[in-house]
Amino acid sequence: MSNHIINRPEDVVHEALEGLGILYPDIVAYHRDPRFVTRSVASTDKVALISGGGAGHEPLHTEFVGTGMLDAAVPGAVFASPTALQIKAAVENVETGHGALLIVKNYTGDKLNFSIAAELLSPEREVAIVVVDDDLSTATADSGGPGRRGTAAVLTVEKICGAAAERGRSLTEIADLGRRVVSASATLSVALRSCTPPGHSVPSFQLNEGEMEFGVGIHGERGRETRATAAASELIPQLAGPVVAEIAAVEGDGVIAVVNGLGATHGLELAVATAELQSFLKSKGITLDRVIAGSFVTALDMHGLSITLLRSTEEFLDLWDAPVHTAALTW
Amino acid sequence: MSNHIINRPEDVVHEALEGLGILYPDIVAYHRDPRFVTRSVASTDKVALISGGGAGHEPLHTEFVGTGMLDAAVPGAVFASPTALQIKAAVENVETGHGALLIVKNYTGDKLNFSIAAELLSPEREVAIVVVDDDLSTATADSGGPGRRGTAAVLTVEKICGAAAERGRSLTEIADLGRRVVSASATLSVALRSCTPPGHSVPSFQLNEGEMEFGVGIHGERGRETRATAAASELIPQLAGPVVAEIAAVEGDGVIAVVNGLGATHGLELAVATAELQSFLKSKGITLDRVIAGSFVTALDMHGLSITLLRSTEEFLDLWDAPVHTAALTW
Repeated sequence: MSNHIINRPEDVVHEALEGLGILYPDIVAYHRDPRFVTRSVASTDKVALISGGGAGHEPLHTEFVGTGMLDAAVPGAVFASPTALQIKAAVENVETGHGALLIVKNYTGDKLNFSIAAELLSPEREVAIVVVDDDLSTATADSGGPGRRGTAAVLTVEKICGAAAERGRSLTEIADLGRRVVSASATLSVALRSCTPPGHSVPSFQLNEGEMEFGVGIHGERGRETRATAAASELIPQLAGPVVAEIAAVEGDGVIAVVNGLGATHGLELAVATAELQSFLKSKGITLDRVIAGSFVTALDMHGLSITLLRSTEEFLDLWDAPVHTAALTW
Repeated sequence: MSNHIINRPEDVVHEALEGLGILYPDIVAYHRDPRFVTRSVASTDKVALISGGGAGHEPLHTEFVGTGMLDAAVPGAVFASPTALQIKAAVENVETGHGALLIVKNYTGDKLNFSIAAELLSPEREVAIVVVDDDLSTATADSGGPGRRGTAAVLTVEKICGAAAERGRSLTEIADLGRRVVSASATLSVALRSCTPPGHSVPSFQLNEGEMEFGVGIHGERGRETRATAAASELIPQLAGPVVAEIAAVEGDGVIAVVNGLGATHGLELAVATAELQSFLKSKGITLDRVIAGSFVTALDMHGLSITLLRSTEEFLDLWDAPVHTAALTW
């Protein structure tokens, strides 16, 4: 018996999407076969934004569908890429002659299936792909591997590109914008307890008391190293320090921050982490221009968090502040 | 070392409230000594709504402060009532001559301290108290004990009374409304894993694989009985069945539902539970008029959920639908 509130593990994604449709009928519509989610009221006069990937990271991406963010999200099974045919069907449903931007986290399966979908689409449809690869704990593509994983920075890409699309910018402009957001953002994560996939009864890896896994991803894999747990005042600088260095934020700069719970992290912890992040940035002379905290890009029920920082520009801040109305983000 | 992302356990509430102020400066203001949270822009032309109780249940109550819900929230330490002096100071800060409604979950400490605060206030301030006692797994006051615990129905009371206050209704009317919401609502909860209080390293009680604790509260105490885990399609009727009976909802009636994660429950699980709830209610001929799902009233990092149902009336639905803008609820 699975230690989760589900029915059969193989049905969890479908049943949860039915639940999503019940919860937010004014925002999203669930298309069952092939499986994807669109806005319940389509927008036909703008570039269409489509993202997707394995399930298990909810609210990402399905709950970022709505005004100011995505037009469609394409979920695979838990931790497994959607198929090219699902992605193609979603694009055909929401692309209305203004082009489609595919926002893809950097994993081999996702990149492959989104690329095949782009090739399968009629050449009359203009398509661009933005690949998000923000996870500092993984090696860059320079080293010959698949490159850095995509994690919570995808939220900043979807929010900022979504706002630009609502304002009528062209596909070329929005794709360029998305790549600039990716270049200016980075993420680092830590876990105190790993996740337990549906149908399993023990976490995907074990930590002893007093240990934390530093540099984890969002699929329950081991991180870069196991470290001793630390007070938030030490842990947050361990995460934010390398991120600040990577995005080359220096004294006088500002950042947009996402303090992201990995699934089972309590609001008290995320709020304490936010206070520590502000204090750390202040010590570096960096301004916390905007910050949100919540469980946005989860690894099922992992207990841990990630810190994503995006170096602010006036353009990014303006688009970040634009209205958004999705299941998971509304302002 | 505590297995949480915090500093000293005794500082967690204060530091999290500092984080809350950083996250939502336009919505809430944190008053440090005595400790309470108010709207950042006070409303002076209406009845003031104040709630509070032990911390560890976030987003309750602090993240329900804002337009359309509370004027102030008064957090104690984790799982401990705030003091009467904190409550008195909060009321004095937000009550502006139109009266104050104190919304109190039914626990001995909370009732005592809110009552003392009401007595300590100047007799020129009109005060009413609504006690929320929705948890079906505890005995009613008829049996001589303290009566049923207050759990997630407090969200429906705060939302509906908050909307009535914005519309200028009198204290007497709003207190009566709140009591009618309490009478028409009930809650039942289940846990698959208990919570681990800050500074502790093991959960407050242990379950074996294949067991769930039925009828838990929100303080990590054991529930009414230990049962075998069940698929969501069996579990949700186990929870919703007694709740439907208690609120005397019958074929042709409608309900407002809160599918509430107890802290570490994943969005996939809450969405599956929502789909199962709709299906169960449909089998009884009851309409799911409104439903929200999320971690609203938590027991720290407990893995489990509660189902709260409020039997709909036109008045309740109208006030439920009214705009709300708080850290945790916005529509």
